[in-house]
Amino acid sequence: MATLPPLGQGPLKTPSLVQTPVAGFKAGAATAGLRKDGRIDLALIAAEAPVSAAAVFTKNRLAAAPVQVARRHVAAGRAQAILANSGGANAATGQPGLAAAEACCRAAGAALGCDPGLVLPCSTGVIGQLLDSAKVAAVLPGLAAGLKPDGLARAAQAIMTTDAFAKMAEERVTLAGAEVTMVGMAKGAGMIHPDMATMLCFVLTDAAASPAALKQALTDAAAESFNRASVDGDTSTNDSLLLLASGRAGNPELGPQSPDLAAFTAALVRLCQRLAAMLVADGEGAEHLVLVRVTGAPDDAQALAHAFAIAHSPLCKTALAGCDPNWGRIVSTAGAEAGRRGWAYAMERLNLWIGEHQICRDGLYAGPAAEQGAAAVMKEPRYAIRLDLGLGAGESWVLTSDLGHEYVRINADYRT
Amino acid sequence: MATLPPLGQGPLKTPSLVQTPVAGFKAGAATAGLRKDGRIDLALIAAEAPVSAAAVFTKNRLAAAPVQVARRHVAAGRAQAILANSGGANAATGQPGLAAAEACCRAAGAALGCDPGLVLPCSTGVIGQLLDSAKVAAVLPGLAAGLKPDGLARAAQAIMTTDAFAKMAEERVTLAGAEVTMVGMAKGAGMIHPDMATMLCFVLTDAAASPAALKQALTDAAAESFNRASVDGDTSTNDSLLLLASGRAGNPELGPQSPDLAAFTAALVRLCQRLAAMLVADGEGAEHLVLVRVTGAPDDAQALAHAFAIAHSPLCKTALAGCDPNWGRIVSTAGAEAGRRGWAYAMERLNLWIGEHQICRDGLYAGPAAEQGAAAVMKEPRYAIRLDLGLGAGESWVLTSDLGHEYVRINADYRT
Repeated sequence: MATLPPLGQGPLKTPSLVQTPVAGFKAGAATAGLRKDGRIDLALIAAEAPVSAAAVFTKNRLAAAPVQVARRHVAAGRAQAILANSGGANAATGQPGLAAAEACCRAAGAALGCDPGLVLPCSTGVIGQLLDSAKVAAVLPGLAAGLKPDGLARAAQAIMTTDAFAKMAEERVTLAGAEVTMVGMAKGAGMIHPDMATMLCFVLTDAAASPAALKQALTDAAAESFNRASVDGDTSTNDSLLLLASGRAGNPELGPQSPDLAAFTAALVRLCQRLAAMLVADGEGAEHLVLVRVTGAPDDAQALAHAFAIAHSPLCKTALAGCDPNWGRIVSTAGAEAGRRGWAYAMERLNLWIGEHQICRDGLYAGPAAEQGAAAVMKEPRYAIRLDLGLGAGESWVLTSDLGHEYVRINADYRT
Repeated sequence: MATLPPLGQGPLKTPSLVQTPVAGFKAGAATAGLRKDGRIDLALIAAEAPVSAAAVFTKNRLAAAPVQVARRHVAAGRAQAILANSGGANAATGQPGLAAAEACCRAAGAALGCDPGLVLPCSTGVIGQLLDSAKVAAVLPGLAAGLKPDGLARAAQAIMTTDAFAKMAEERVTLAGAEVTMVGMAKGAGMIHPDMATMLCFVLTDAAASPAALKQALTDAAAESFNRASVDGDTSTNDSLLLLASGRAGNPELGPQSPDLAAFTAALVRLCQRLAAMLVADGEGAEHLVLVRVTGAPDDAQALAHAFAIAHSPLCKTALAGCDPNWGRIVSTAGAEAGRRGWAYAMERLNLWIGEHQICRDGLYAGPAAEQGAAAVMKEPRYAIRLDLGLGAGESWVLTSDLGHEYVRINADYRT
């Protein structure tokens, strides 16, 4: 069975700051003046020397300039620093945007005394705004000089945009007797958020691992976490998930064939799932974090497509906002997806649960008691729904949020 | 070039009633008590004798009981009556739902003196509510006795649910010297509206045409109209588009190979495009009817997929609601679609117009003057945007609406 993500507890918008340092890394933040509000807007995370690195970037063909540069810089599996700014996405900015991203890397390299080709740039903010690299360069020497081992939380705060709370998580795993630490930070209000463009997630670990092992673990973790999280179904131009490993934990270096790689990957999956749940919980205007499970599909891929169809349906998402156990919308969405794809679907085999309450049994309404129970569950900030198709053993899940008035207010009125 | 649909004029929610009769048809409406508000809720349209008929139904695999019955009844290309109710979709109602739909057809057949297998049933309303066929049967004798040639407008009003205005249109075309009339009526607030489930559209014509010719014309017309209209991207369980032809116009019977079929189809396309534009204009909470054109794609299919991606993006749709010329969201949506599909995309070749104002030129922001002009256009109730991909000669379009507070209010609070 697929590992289900933890939904967390308590109010949705609960800050999660981690003060734990990761051996081999220092971090800090500064105000470069990229944001209008004067908040810290530039984060720098640096290793003492080049380290193993892996990355997953947006599949949007309109990849921002920093994504294009970071993709090139990380291609060989080595990196020494992450330089991330809020206050502008530097996307759809053409050649001047690429030049600005490269200038920032050169300035960071000079300030840190490292190869600029080992700096991974990230930007988040409005699409179409050219990054002012001079402002970044002006503060980099002071920022680099003041980096601290316990500076990760400050870096996490510098990359927040419309985020209602800071998002960090940590995991530990013992590999061959050595305790490995991993700390992750993420930003994004909405899984994806094309204006204050972006999900950014940086994971730092002291594990010793080859670039190939990191890439494999990160790809697996992304598939089980961020790629199953949807606030609005859009894909940002700047999404970047970076993993840097300092090798200071003392474990035997993980390679793609190491038996310990599974344990490392499992910890990374847990870390990424916690951060992904935070991103969805911080979905713009979201009042509910909902795990949409689909079981009984002919295969896992169909189950995932059905879960996404429900998570993307404005009618299902507004029903979640209204705490309305409108089961007809959910089963209809699955029927529409099956119709579009030419997939099997049998109404009389459908069963649907909201929390523990079965509201649809064998394709028919299960009665007012179930409906009342479901309505009570839907008032909770975090809950699960499960649609069983009754066709096979395939299953999957997606994390999503509701679509309420606040989402519209934020997105219709943004920029103006 | 693809025929662009007319966007109409004036305020979006303008009623469009047609009093023109169509030779060979009578119609009327009654209050069967299916709605809680006591409004007319049952429409009956009948021909004097069996006529040629064609239909297009929802592709949702959760097809409502009336859709399943109507699909069977129209399979041979003949029909004599349309029986449509609001106040309940009779979807997800299992065998009892099928029995209720069939009982209604028997009652209509008895009242009209025609074969029940020639009655096409349609239902619209909440999913999961069984149709009370006894209520329908009770009023059918009186309804059938009172049908009138000028009763079509009353029938159009009986099938309204949350529709803010009645939707009818007429077209005329001369075929081999004979003047042919076609009158259409549609219901739907939102292209699709899974609770008050459905788009229903009935088109009546006095043309003489074989079932095969009608099917071909209707399929073509649906592809150029209703299948290019999207309010929320959901597909109803009850969508039905029916075309009945009495043959009273005196034209030589149209067959699939008739030279005149193109002219007939063109008139049907115009009719359906006008009705489709009315459906989108009546989109739940919609304040804008927007034609999304994509040109310069490698082929027409890619252009259509890009247009739908924009029309389905909550971020684009909320920007439309906010009258915000947020061009980054539009070009980013196209980049995301290209990334998902593995299609070509070249940012530096993109050009984007809102109305006549080019806001993105060769992939870059075109400046504040264009932005101000675009913002003014976006305050209009009806306008067009055009994204040119600069890759080829493919083009297509989709009609859509904005997603504002009123959409959320209607859909989050519905039923509760």
